[in-house]
Amino acid sequence: EIELLLLYLLLAFVTLATTDSYCMGATVVARSLRRHGTTRHIVVMITPNISEQSRLALKNVFDDVIVVDVMDSEDSLHLSLLGRPELGITFTKIHCWTLTQYSKCVFLDADTLVLCNVDELFERDELSAAPDPGWPDCFNSGVFVFRPSLHTHTRLLDHARHHGSFDGGDQGLLNSFFSGWSVEDISKHLPFIYNLSVSSVYSYLPAFQQFGHGAKIIHFLGGDKPWKSQGNGSGSRTMEQFVSLWWKEYLIHTTPSAPAAQPKQEQKKPQQQVWEGGAAQLTMVQPALELNVRKKIYLTACMYHHIDMIYLKDCDRKPLWKPGWGQQTGVLLLLPHRKLDTNESLLCILKPKHRSM
Amino acid sequence: EIELLLLYLLLAFVTLATTDSYCMGATVVARSLRRHGTTRHIVVMITPNISEQSRLALKNVFDDVIVVDVMDSEDSLHLSLLGRPELGITFTKIHCWTLTQYSKCVFLDADTLVLCNVDELFERDELSAAPDPGWPDCFNSGVFVFRPSLHTHTRLLDHARHHGSFDGGDQGLLNSFFSGWSVEDISKHLPFIYNLSVSSVYSYLPAFQQFGHGAKIIHFLGGDKPWKSQGNGSGSRTMEQFVSLWWKEYLIHTTPSAPAAQPKQEQKKPQQQVWEGGAAQLTMVQPALELNVRKKIYLTACMYHHIDMIYLKDCDRKPLWKPGWGQQTGVLLLLPHRKLDTNESLLCILKPKHRSM
Repeated sequence: EIELLLLYLLLAFVTLATTDSYCMGATVVARSLRRHGTTRHIVVMITPNISEQSRLALKNVFDDVIVVDVMDSEDSLHLSLLGRPELGITFTKIHCWTLTQYSKCVFLDADTLVLCNVDELFERDELSAAPDPGWPDCFNSGVFVFRPSLHTHTRLLDHARHHGSFDGGDQGLLNSFFSGWSVEDISKHLPFIYNLSVSSVYSYLPAFQQFGHGAKIIHFLGGDKPWKSQGNGSGSRTMEQFVSLWWKEYLIHTTPSAPAAQPKQEQKKPQQQVWEGGAAQLTMVQPALELNVRKKIYLTACMYHHIDMIYLKDCDRKPLWKPGWGQQTGVLLLLPHRKLDTNESLLCILKPKHRSM
Repeated sequence: EIELLLLYLLLAFVTLATTDSYCMGATVVARSLRRHGTTRHIVVMITPNISEQSRLALKNVFDDVIVVDVMDSEDSLHLSLLGRPELGITFTKIHCWTLTQYSKCVFLDADTLVLCNVDELFERDELSAAPDPGWPDCFNSGVFVFRPSLHTHTRLLDHARHHGSFDGGDQGLLNSFFSGWSVEDISKHLPFIYNLSVSSVYSYLPAFQQFGHGAKIIHFLGGDKPWKSQGNGSGSRTMEQFVSLWWKEYLIHTTPSAPAAQPKQEQKKPQQQVWEGGAAQLTMVQPALELNVRKKIYLTACMYHHIDMIYLKDCDRKPLWKPGWGQQTGVLLLLPHRKLDTNESLLCILKPKHRSM
């Protein structure tokens, strides 16, 4: 007999704010995601310098606000990295790989604006990203799909320590770490409309006119951030429209009369889900669903349409099942591991090994 | 008993010159290809306005100079297209699909400069091209791999007639015709170093410093063509170096003392190849090898390292064998059709069905 812990693995959008200005951007990222009906968690990583006021504002729109500090003494590598202070901001973003309470995440830079529901991004695998217009065999690291993993995080830090970053930022590091992106797997090439840099409006105008209407995420790449202007005619008409959209998203809930916590409550999907097992009735608890039974079981009827993988772990959190094990263990019956289509449900069978029902 | 015609299918680089200035560019394309030891044919398409002097110069460096005229009365579609005069230049380039004397080609714009041997491009299939930095889900049509086909040519003209070109040029037309390029097959994404636009030197300098040393084909995209300047310091140092390289390539054989035909003779590989058959000794004749026998045969020992496919046709030029037929016809024994690696030989067995040797 063994004890089982069934972990429900969450999906999340993640962004990062390293200054109070970028907190404005992060707020717009979250609001634009919610307004377009995302059902995923929305998380912001902040650095310790962020003011208390900004943190409170972020807590109103994000499911989780996580303070990250690359100089934290728990970072076993930080001493050896002290010689490379210019990589500090890089490591801050790379910290997203430590968010292992989530199984898969989509990172969005705080200078992006989401124009429609983009939950289908979670169908992609690590590392999926759109090409960078500056050098299109590199991906732009403003929007990417990744799988949190402490192992990957350590390898990224190690890579940074040994090779640095060819552009001094996270994009150079991530491109040299995930160096096969441009040649290996077309499914990891996000369409450019998922990370449409505003500069591309000018660089190939006919293409923008042809494909720009399908834009899903706008990236205010470069020095002209929307929070620095009020859309007062400094750029092109198209650029002004995007800046205006950004401000609309920012101001819509920032009026003094609106209760601070209301937008989050209104827009979030109910998180309660019932999981049924042959041996137990299970209610989903965020961030993990825990099931303790004192005998071997099969899974029978846990259904949740956002799940993309199920791990079963024993009380010491050691995995009992991995993709591909199938029925060979004699313990668990699970569907073959594969990517789920949008809106598709995952049905797992949870039942006692010796059925009594 | 049947008659067989064995066609030897050629590979070629193709460029296009529509003005006498672009003839200078086309000359550099051919010379840079030859200097880096290409073993493929090099072909230029020219429009009727090109001067006699330029044509003579082109004949010294190209294997074939082909005059194309979109207004030619043989173009059955031209009447219906007269209403779209802006597409004229587009159709001129699209004419490359009519070069069916070649089985596969690599198109190079006349404003490109080849920096090393790029014969491995023929391992790719239609339509392979590198991303355009302006809108990286579009390919840049300055360098692309294609398979000449009158059927494709007709479909391209038809597409142009019905949908036009979103940028008024060949790039818009080709991108909407080969619209799956960005999402379907990573092997059709040529690395950016095969079509490195000079503007990318500035747009993401760290990436250029990291990857630019591997550049294979430089593309002088935009208005500043190298033949318009003498590398006199108008651009960046890197740009000047590329312009200077271009002029070196252009001037090296354009001195009055050099006999006009010499470079071509010196640099071209001998084209004679002996093909052996169980029933016949065959000598390769450009552009096609003809074998007439009056009984059924197998292929036995035709070997040529540039071939990428063999068709057998009867006297009416109808194909007797197609990839995948294998031995099922009872007539021909051929190797399974597959792509050849660079420098790899294709061995075909040519022998009588009832061997007497």
